[in-house]
Amino acid sequence: MSLLVVGSVALDSVFTPFGETADALGGSAVYFSVAGSLLHPVKVVGVVGSDYPVLELEKLAPRGIDWSGVERAEGESFRWKGKYSYDLQSRETLETRLGVFADFRPKLPDGFRSVEYLFLGNIDPELQLGVLDQIPRARFVVCDTMNYWIQGKKDALMALLERVDLLMVNDSEARELSGDWNIHRAGRWILAHGPKRVVVKQGEYGALMMEPGRTFYAPAFPLEEVFDPTGAGDAFAGGFMGYLARTGSLTEDGLRSAMIYGAAMGSYAVSHFGIRGFEGVTLIDVQRRVRTFRDLTHVPLAELVP
Amino acid sequence: MSLLVVGSVALDSVFTPFGETADALGGSAVYFSVAGSLLHPVKVVGVVGSDYPVLELEKLAPRGIDWSGVERAEGESFRWKGKYSYDLQSRETLETRLGVFADFRPKLPDGFRSVEYLFLGNIDPELQLGVLDQIPRARFVVCDTMNYWIQGKKDALMALLERVDLLMVNDSEARELSGDWNIHRAGRWILAHGPKRVVVKQGEYGALMMEPGRTFYAPAFPLEEVFDPTGAGDAFAGGFMGYLARTGSLTEDGLRSAMIYGAAMGSYAVSHFGIRGFEGVTLIDVQRRVRTFRDLTHVPLAELVP
Repeated sequence: MSLLVVGSVALDSVFTPFGETADALGGSAVYFSVAGSLLHPVKVVGVVGSDYPVLELEKLAPRGIDWSGVERAEGESFRWKGKYSYDLQSRETLETRLGVFADFRPKLPDGFRSVEYLFLGNIDPELQLGVLDQIPRARFVVCDTMNYWIQGKKDALMALLERVDLLMVNDSEARELSGDWNIHRAGRWILAHGPKRVVVKQGEYGALMMEPGRTFYAPAFPLEEVFDPTGAGDAFAGGFMGYLARTGSLTEDGLRSAMIYGAAMGSYAVSHFGIRGFEGVTLIDVQRRVRTFRDLTHVPLAELVP
Repeated sequence: MSLLVVGSVALDSVFTPFGETADALGGSAVYFSVAGSLLHPVKVVGVVGSDYPVLELEKLAPRGIDWSGVERAEGESFRWKGKYSYDLQSRETLETRLGVFADFRPKLPDGFRSVEYLFLGNIDPELQLGVLDQIPRARFVVCDTMNYWIQGKKDALMALLERVDLLMVNDSEARELSGDWNIHRAGRWILAHGPKRVVVKQGEYGALMMEPGRTFYAPAFPLEEVFDPTGAGDAFAGGFMGYLARTGSLTEDGLRSAMIYGAAMGSYAVSHFGIRGFEGVTLIDVQRRVRTFRDLTHVPLAELVP
């Protein structure tokens, strides 16, 4: 089952109370593929400028990441610079330089058009629709978005929602999209507008997966040390989709397990700067963390004394 | 197994975006006992002024609430007035009038000194210690506190922590007490200062129960309508302690089940103003909600395809 992510390949400069990075590998497609490739090979479609350290990307290829769909354009790469608050609960964007990303029009190599599992990272919903047009028979399509597109490209986004299986957003995006601050009503609103399921990420509190009449709650892994929340959501998506592509299971049980694998990947992402939290992590480590997740919410089958 | 709560019996005036109440029954001991009595009889120790609508309390007695330990003093009852933000995420205290509560010195009736399960609601830690002195052989003691005492009575509070089995606080209190914003490190700090377990309540995100090396996460019940968060934490405590007193089980499994009963009670508390969310709720309703909790976090025993 082939797995494709379309998203940004960026250079991130991040300031946290614990340190900083400059022009480190980042972007939704990078975090997604580094996490997802622990479970299943990942194909990537994106764009980098002539200044991108492509050798750094190539070093990641042996994990099972196919970068052949990443276009190399003349000009500057996409750069994001951000600063986190002392408790990592909020962040401020200091600078966004789109560079070659401004003219990005995803074109899929021929061999990519038959992929079955597709993650549309957070890019212009018109481009996300353009990708979908190139993959007529995807088995399972998940998309992300952000407040910028909710405000500026609502029509395209709503058209997109009708064509995806699952929307994966964070809680503030779900609230803004639905116009409802109650997260469960917001989820119901989204379900009424296309996707069969919606995943709402809530940072350190975990993530909800909702379908009509049923909700699943995956907590975040308890971490005493969090260094850099950047990319946690995309790493979550990589674990979620990697699990589905590996197992081929789209049942409720399969999707719940995928949520736990996603949460595990998110926990590696935040445990170091950039993608370094994944260094040395093996599938065995991931499995061990997944098992501790099960204990984290395990409720015994206790019955009341009458 | 007898169950006792020592705490406030108050008159609350609450303003939310959905309505308001004036001088409604409230206070930690009231919320605790209304919730806990769905599972087990509850004895209450507290104080009310000469203006308190004691007939309203008496109407609740048939639930299994023993108010005989509530002192009737000359003067005004404890009153709290608060206003919630549009999304119920934050609240402002408009007025606190201690009244007879200012001179409250809990004295336990003889029949109360042999109780086995004790919840020390959020009052001056010196008074909480005074209650403990009167109950030498309690089997399981849980206490609450708040930022006011953390700031003003830290020594007494630390002495109290060494004598309780479990501290139950919300996340901001855990952070302030430990001086650590990471909730898992904050929990570890608390465990190193006395209690064998700590429960950290996180509002709409649920609650964590930590012991050394192990964490349990109970999510909040998914509610599309929340009207008044006042008392949710005390109702949680009532469900938690009511379950333990009813079953007598202090194993990990028992405590986890107690967390789920607590979460269920919290969900009833917030679904209406004051204690009205409990009107008409039966043990069968509670059990049904507990079962849906289990599904909310149920992770299938999926194994990876090799």
